[in-house]
Amino acid sequence: METYTAMVMEEAGSVPRPEPRPVHEPGRDEAVVRVRASSMNFHDLVNLLGMIDGPWPRVPMSDGAGEVVAVGERVRGLEVGDRVTGAFLPRWSHGPPGPEVERYVPGDAGDGWLQQYARFPAAALVPVPVHLTDLEAATLPCAGTTAWSALRAGSVKAGDVVVCLGTGGVSLLALQLAKAHGAEVVLTSSSDEKLRVGESLGADHLVNYRSTPDWDRAVRAATGGRGADLVLDVGGADTLPRSVRAVRRAGMVVVVGAVSGADTAEVSIFDVMGRNVHLVGITVGSVADHAACCRAVELHRIHPPISHTLDWTEIGEAMRAMQAHEHVGKIALRIS
Amino acid sequence: METYTAMVMEEAGSVPRPEPRPVHEPGRDEAVVRVRASSMNFHDLVNLLGMIDGPWPRVPMSDGAGEVVAVGERVRGLEVGDRVTGAFLPRWSHGPPGPEVERYVPGDAGDGWLQQYARFPAAALVPVPVHLTDLEAATLPCAGTTAWSALRAGSVKAGDVVVCLGTGGVSLLALQLAKAHGAEVVLTSSSDEKLRVGESLGADHLVNYRSTPDWDRAVRAATGGRGADLVLDVGGADTLPRSVRAVRRAGMVVVVGAVSGADTAEVSIFDVMGRNVHLVGITVGSVADHAACCRAVELHRIHPPISHTLDWTEIGEAMRAMQAHEHVGKIALRIS
Amino acid sequence: METYTAMVMEEAGSVPRPEPRPVHEPGRDEAVVRVRASSMNFHDLVNLLGMIDGPWPRVPMSDGAGEVVAVGERVRGLEVGDRVTGAFLPRWSHGPPGPEVERYVPGDAGDGWLQQYARFPAAALVPVPVHLTDLEAATLPCAGTTAWSALRAGSVKAGDVVVCLGTGGVSLLALQLAKAHGAEVVLTSSSDEKLRVGESLGADHLVNYRSTPDWDRAVRAATGGRGADLVLDVGGADTLPRSVRAVRRAGMVVVVGAVSGADTAEVSIFDVMGRNVHLVGITVGSVADHAACCRAVELHRIHPPISHTLDWTEIGEAMRAMQAHEHVGKIALRIS
Amino acid sequence: METYTAMVMEEAGSVPRPEPRPVHEPGRDEAVVRVRASSMNFHDLVNLLGMIDGPWPRVPMSDGAGEVVAVGERVRGLEVGDRVTGAFLPRWSHGPPGPEVERYVPGDAGDGWLQQYARFPAAALVPVPVHLTDLEAATLPCAGTTAWSALRAGSVKAGDVVVCLGTGGVSLLALQLAKAHGAEVVLTSSSDEKLRVGESLGADHLVNYRSTPDWDRAVRAATGGRGADLVLDVGGADTLPRSVRAVRRAGMVVVVGAVSGADTAEVSIFDVMGRNVHLVGITVGSVADHAACCRAVELHRIHPPISHTLDWTEIGEAMRAMQAHEHVGKIALRIS
Repeated sequence: METYTAMVMEEAGSVPRPEPRPVHEPGRDEAVVRVRASSMNFHDLVNLLGMIDGPWPRVPMSDGAGEVVAVGERVRGLEVGDRVTGAFLPRWSHGPPGPEVERYVPGDAGDGWLQQYARFPAAALVPVPVHLTDLEAATLPCAGTTAWSALRAGSVKAGDVVVCLGTGGVSLLALQLAKAHGAEVVLTSSSDEKLRVGESLGADHLVNYRSTPDWDRAVRAATGGRGADLVLDVGGADTLPRSVRAVRRAGMVVVVGAVSGADTAEVSIFDVMGRNVHLVGITVGSVADHAACCRAVELHRIHPPISHTLDWTEIGEAMRAMQAHEHVGKIALRIS
Repeated sequence: METYTAMVMEEAGSVPRPEPRPVHEPGRDEAVVRVRASSMNFHDLVNLLGMIDGPWPRVPMSDGAGEVVAVGERVRGLEVGDRVTGAFLPRWSHGPPGPEVERYVPGDAGDGWLQQYARFPAAALVPVPVHLTDLEAATLPCAGTTAWSALRAGSVKAGDVVVCLGTGGVSLLALQLAKAHGAEVVLTSSSDEKLRVGESLGADHLVNYRSTPDWDRAVRAATGGRGADLVLDVGGADTLPRSVRAVRRAGMVVVVGAVSGADTAEVSIFDVMGRNVHLVGITVGSVADHAACCRAVELHRIHPPISHTLDWTEIGEAMRAMQAHEHVGKIALRIS
Repeated sequence: METYTAMVMEEAGSVPRPEPRPVHEPGRDEAVVRVRASSMNFHDLVNLLGMIDGPWPRVPMSDGAGEVVAVGERVRGLEVGDRVTGAFLPRWSHGPPGPEVERYVPGDAGDGWLQQYARFPAAALVPVPVHLTDLEAATLPCAGTTAWSALRAGSVKAGDVVVCLGTGGVSLLALQLAKAHGAEVVLTSSSDEKLRVGESLGADHLVNYRSTPDWDRAVRAATGGRGADLVLDVGGADTLPRSVRAVRRAGMVVVVGAVSGADTAEVSIFDVMGRNVHLVGITVGSVADHAACCRAVELHRIHPPISHTLDWTEIGEAMRAMQAHEHVGKIALRIS
Repeated sequence: METYTAMVMEEAGSVPRPEPRPVHEPGRDEAVVRVRASSMNFHDLVNLLGMIDGPWPRVPMSDGAGEVVAVGERVRGLEVGDRVTGAFLPRWSHGPPGPEVERYVPGDAGDGWLQQYARFPAAALVPVPVHLTDLEAATLPCAGTTAWSALRAGSVKAGDVVVCLGTGGVSLLALQLAKAHGAEVVLTSSSDEKLRVGESLGADHLVNYRSTPDWDRAVRAATGGRGADLVLDVGGADTLPRSVRAVRRAGMVVVVGAVSGADTAEVSIFDVMGRNVHLVGITVGSVADHAACCRAVELHRIHPPISHTLDWTEIGEAMRAMQAHEHVGKIALRIS
């Protein structure tokens, strides 16, 4: 039996080390993928720092893309040679999140994508949009699907105003997907340089929250005083109070992250109640959401923005870049 | 021209004093009502304490019921002799709250119900459920419609679990309306005596939050660990963090009040995000919501609970009782 | 290995004959059920008459209930001794119907419930409401879940008016579940005797469509001219045109059957368009819908109406009774 | 008092004749508009042919655009000099269609737009998208809003497949608005020439239903067998059966017209039921829908396609062209 290289974390916080492993046959409902790319999410950083429980040793990284090299006997609709990405929550097939959505994430609860070959349930693999490279496709499972689900939570339609906070992977993909939905997009950042990247991706309004700390007022000004239809909040404690003020009456704030670190945010009851704000928390999305995202990405020929492309052996550098907030969009990893 | 007595506040915080006024003819789209009853909401208390802006002098009280004595020439569907209640937000006819929902509340922005005769747009008057007294009907415009809208925000269905916090007017009406929707109801209170009133109205589970401060765990226990489908939060800062923990994955917390006084509440980002909680603020409801509430109240022969029935001259006593939290359900005022 | 008796159809249209079979061990995700009851749906009649393709030989009947006697190693939340019913569409776990909903029905595509022991995926089994007998529980998988899904398609709420056509299993369960949702129910039938059964189950308005052929006008009359919120149409060609006329502006007609036999129905474009009618076809429901139905049945202590209780050896008599339209509610089969 | 020219129909079917009328002051909530353009809908044709009841004499035409020349004392948010269009249903402000939606259409129940000056409730006037001429803007009230509402009924999102039948005004505006929502569009027509116009407006797939009568199969083929997410049906009896077959499981057919003339359409119960099709009838939309449509038209710089621009004195030629199906998109009328 052939062997391949997997990067394995021995225990919480240990550096992933190469390890030879045998290539297994797929189970009846599984496919084996020759992995070509992965990408780093905030979730992966937290995982690599040893802050997520689960079985040890394990192969980290929730996201990836590659080529199918073998399929199980009962697999339909997937063939050897197909290029695929995996789902962040492979056991949540479709529909609303219910008790059946176990929090099983590749790289946490089982082996992830930082290896040359990986075995997954075929039902959790989604075709790569034809115009994308493997590196680009590997940015979609977590960040793309999260952005997609956030926009769908608010039923964003043509003419709506969507606010994307910052220039991380989720925010820039949300910008691109919001444009694909026909929305007008306000982008915030602390850096004019990063805002210019957002502008090149289609952002209609740019707000530097360093020079304009009350960016919620800038959103109101940009909407004739009405407020945005949807704010995609990734900041948590630092941003949520302003996000609530930035939306229109009966508008929606989708809570998808807490990059500011603190768990609790202070929310104004009077703002929420008096203006009928909807606050909704989401967790990435289902396999069907991931597939719908990929379909829109393909139809609109969206190229996910990647600021850092590294070799998978440079995972330490990827961690450092993310911790230093150097990235604009995604950090992608080549797996050779 | 005949005169009648209105209770008038001269300025912010002044005690309402009787004043003779002429009975006016209705405008083309208006009706004149011989008022028979009003009821006191927390909103009225705040208003009577002088904390709501608006024109002075004015007649306070947002809610009331009585008999139509004259209708304008263009009025259809309303006749002299009909018993009616008024809407809390008479300019919000139906549909979702939009920019057209001006915050025009009777008793704030214009004269309210603490008078023997009142003139209103006919389109903002709703027939009294046939089985109700005027006093009972006068409890519905604010508290009943708020409770109704909260349940509708969550599309409550048969078999759902709804948590009502406390035994104020909104909470007990929500309890009754949730039972009418076929839901299972958890009621909380600091008083076993008040809980027994709730039990007599159909509450399935009673939780004394004095003896069981972690009432969210009691809700989880009562639902086999799953959590409630909807919590109607009236407490604000004191209750919102636990409300978020008491709901199931993708459950809803409807924010309808802040009786604890503080504006801001600390909400856990991880709870909201990780369990996909929906937090929704509502403001009473439209005239159509009020009418739908009245229809359900009639079909289910619901009698709104009233713990205090006072004469309209005893408005000071009504204020005292509400401030002392003596009421269970509503405080009603007879207008003779 | 122990053997048991299964009733087996050799080929399309052949009478089910007893056959000894060995009791198998459950697979890892399966449970083995000692079947105690089944019930007959129109779908089963069509199947027994040989009009549904699929593999032969096979054990017919889509619905059943019994007791778990063995569970596979990976099964969680289900134990030996639990009483369960099965889902009509065991592969549709939850959420909206999508491409992943294969039309796999027990008794068609694989063995059904007309046997003493049956093996099913544990995820497709639902606990029996505690107050029900096995015979009662066996009426819920197809008819109960269909009725439930139809009411949920229209988001039926307290005070709504629901029209149930006829007194078959789906219609009478819809009547009971609509009452549990707080609705007002209009029931139609060609027989005053059958209508009286409906009245005893809570129907608010009874319409004999033999003596009142324009029953849609009777519905309008019963609703003050407004029309019903939802009509559950089981009749197809014979009833759909009137169903469309019986609903209010923007009301919903849920199409769940075509007992009149013809495939096509003539629908008035002007009715649909001018009054913004929603016509929605549904196919029973998911396992989650079935479970939610069972939960509401339990909370409301609903007893599904059964007019005929027969032994499983009397399946021919069950077919005859259904073809003669003798039943009111369901025909249940004891499996001993 | 100044006078102006109105084109007046004396009675059902009579040719509109010029008549001098005095320019009136606006009522308190009204605005007076100097009309510059109108456009012809199928509804107007039917009206001009004398087939719509109402008071006589009257000024025909439901749609128009022009410049505000006077506003009533209570009007806010509208000023002299603003360019505006009117709503097709001026009394339906927003929200779902309810009993309060009277069927009051300008040109039917009261004077319409075929005059130099017109007085309307200010609340029913909507700003013209800045990039549009008055002629272009005058095409939006009926056709644009209908197209908009149809897409919103199905919550069309990026990546969805929408089918537009034919190249009339509603269908081509639906094509443009569907593209603005990020959808993929299939367009049908009997003419390759007309299809090329659709292609220039962004249609992704073109189907000539003369050469491909089973266009529903072409839709399935274009979607990998899955079917469209939404079909906008304008044809009625001739097209509805295929529309039902062209949509995916749980897809939506929006019924907005019956150009084939017949009232009733034969719908397959098995198609509707077995594939969970949603059939929804809509009637143009509210003032808020019209405004949202205009906002999307402006953001996306959509130019409504106009094949015929005529003088208002040539209304007879406009009728002839529409009856001969010569138009592609809209027929616009200059009012000088």
